[in-house]
Order: sequence, then structure tokens, then C-alpha cells
Amino acid sequence: MITIDFQKMGGLIPAIIQDHATNEVLMVAFMDEKTLNLTLESGKTWFFSRSRNKYWMKGEESGNTQEVVEVLTDCDADAVVIKVKQNGPAACHTGNRSCFYVRWEDGQWVEHSEPLFDPAEVYKK
Amino acid sequence: MITIDFQKMGGLIPAIIQDHATNEVLMVAFMDEKTLNLTLESGKTWFFSRSRNKYWMKGEESGNTQEVVEVLTDCDADAVVIKVKQNGPAACHTGNRSCFYVRWEDGQWVEHSEPLFDPAEVYKK
Repeated sequence: MITIDFQKMGGLIPAIIQDHATNEVLMVAFMDEKTLNLTLESGKTWFFSRSRNKYWMKGEESGNTQEVVEVLTDCDADAVVIKVKQNGPAACHTGNRSCFYVRWEDGQWVEHSEPLFDPAEVYKK
Repeated sequence: MITIDFQKMGGLIPAIIQDHATNEVLMVAFMDEKTLNLTLESGKTWFFSRSRNKYWMKGEESGNTQEVVEVLTDCDADAVVIKVKQNGPAACHTGNRSCFYVRWEDGQWVEHSEPLFDPAEVYKK
């Protein structure tokens, strides 16, 4: 029986979130055993925030939740790929569709930011 | 100027390797600053192995190297997505095209292994 190996990284595994229709990588975040189980049971993506030291559901503030379509793990069972239907216009807190909008070009990182919403509006308290 | 943040994970960042043509995630591995620079300079993917505590170039043993097509980082600059042209039949050491051949189905992980080469042949010394 395959079980996920959370020990290599102090209880966490990287979770790669892909758009189920285009396979675009929308974001990468981390899950512990509890948030992986929450994700599998609820059908929404849950993560562990290393910087805030807390659990969070993607979209809990913005409404841009992610519906789980397919969950895969790898040959070492130490990472997951989760294919989702992204609700709302974008996955990134910057308003970009994907968090990966910075490209290596001619020896430097170049931002290609095309926000689909205004973060100041979406994340206002 | 954007610089990659290697500090969150003790000098490492997750590197998501995607097939440049299909966007399939082929593998996830880790890079430190040296192997990211080697990757950017050589155009082949280099990683840091946590279990073997060494640098390695994907395909150095099997010949199934990866040619870098595009390199992206995210809003926090703490992960990279690398789109590659995969040389040889497969990226995974098991012979599968992708390392992510294990799917969550009805409450358990189910292997869908379809090896495209025989690991015993490819990795023999």
C-alpha cells in the first residue's frame, strides 16, 4: 500500500496545482498530512502556510477556490500534483492567473504581470 | 531586481519539470543556488539530491537528459517551473514517462505504471 512520505521535509510535501484543462501550473504550495486529507475529503485545496504557520483554504478570502479534479503522487510518494478547476479569474494573490508570471530572459528575471483582478479590492478587510 | 529566495527551505527550492509541448508534469526535484545556475547556464536540468546529498544532472546515467526550453519563477520567487524537451522515452527512473503515475482513486493510491524502458537495463553499471 502506498502512503505519502511526509518525513523528508519535516512533515510537509510540495503540492503542485495545475489547471485541469490546460495543465498550466497555477501555484505551488505545501501540505502536511492534515491539509492533504482535508483536500482529499473536501474537494477543495487546503495548504499549510510556512510563513504564517497556519492552515488555509485557497480562496477563503478571495473566493477564488479550487475544485479538485484529480490527485496524483510520484514514484517516491513525496509530492502531489493536483489538477483543479479554478474558480474566479485567477489563482495568484497578485491577480495573475498563475503565480508563475516571472520568466528568465537574457540573464535576468522579467515580470509579465497581467492581473485579472485588483488585489486591493479582493483582499480588503 | 528579482532574486530567488533559497532561505525558506534551508537553501533549496522545489523545481517542477514540465513537458514543454504538453505541460505534463514530468517530475519534481530540488535545486540549490548552484544547481539552478548550472541549469540556467548549461541548458540541461541539474538538481540537488536530498537523499544522496549530491548534485546530479538528469539523464547523466540513463541518457534521458532534459533540454531547458523556458524557466519561470513565482510571485514569491521560491519555486521554479522549468519547461523542457525530454530526451529519451521517459523522465522517471521507473521507466514511466512521468514520475506522477500514481492516482488517488476511491480512497487509495493506485499505480498506473506503464514503463517505456526497463530500469534494470538502463541503470545497469
